[in-house]
Amino acid sequence: MDDQQQAAQEQARQWLATAVAEARAGLAEGGIPIGAALYGPDGRLLGRGHNRRVQDGDPSMHAETAAFRNAGRQRSYRGTTMVTTLSPCWYCSGLVRQFGISRVVIGESETFQGGHDWLAGHGVEIVQLDDSECIALMRDFIKNNPALWNEDIGDD
Amino acid sequence: MDDQQQAAQEQARQWLATAVAEARAGLAEGGIPIGAALYGPDGRLLGRGHNRRVQDGDPSMHAETAAFRNAGRQRSYRGTTMVTTLSPCWYCSGLVRQFGISRVVIGESETFQGGHDWLAGHGVEIVQLDDSECIALMRDFIKNNPALWNEDIGDD
Repeated sequence: MDDQQQAAQEQARQWLATAVAEARAGLAEGGIPIGAALYGPDGRLLGRGHNRRVQDGDPSMHAETAAFRNAGRQRSYRGTTMVTTLSPCWYCSGLVRQFGISRVVIGESETFQGGHDWLAGHGVEIVQLDDSECIALMRDFIKNNPALWNEDIGDD
Repeated sequence: MDDQQQAAQEQARQWLATAVAEARAGLAEGGIPIGAALYGPDGRLLGRGHNRRVQDGDPSMHAETAAFRNAGRQRSYRGTTMVTTLSPCWYCSGLVRQFGISRVVIGESETFQGGHDWLAGHGVEIVQLDDSECIALMRDFIKNNPALWNEDIGDD
């Protein structure tokens, strides 16, 4: 890894901390512990959020859609980065593709494999961090709440 | 077309009327005229909604996601039908795939081509209605509001 790659990894890990804080906030509220944040091309935080299925009875608010929503209306998503604690499901992968979000930083894709390969095939830069804290968060949650988890990913 | 197909087409057209009413409500509010509705396997209306980008400053509320949200939490989407005035974008197509919505009824795909072929390839039943009212609604809207339309589909 050269210096530039190292710096990019360090930035990705810093940004992931925002998403993890969101996931932990969701867990503390009794919700599904997935968090996300949308960063601008200049590194500015545009929006952050977490899954709100339980808290609001709102199945449309996955972590990524919550962060996207909280960023408000944007004319362009070129150069933006979506950071998420968990590999994005098809719903959230579709969001990334449709709005031309340039990069996705993924905390982990061990407990759930979303659409990140599909996104990579459509020109989205994917950064996988294999973060042990993210893995532990989801592994514990799924083990203790299998029905809720299956509901959230439409697995019936 | 046999009798069964004819009955299915008639039901699809009836359901489309709900989505068109939503699109017209959105237009009357100064919004983007796309409407949708989610119907259960038994034909019961589970949720309906329209694009709310302008009204709520919320880019996450496309017509389909609004209908999905308004349907609240569901244990399973097996056998459900998403009816939409316009071919679903990647974001909304991802929603359909992730949650296992069985069928999509599309008012028109002439002014915008979304992910319905992709969905068909993944086992979702697609019913295209080529509805002239839906086409006229979007054609007029796009002609008069090109920047807003491009913003809504992330076309920068």
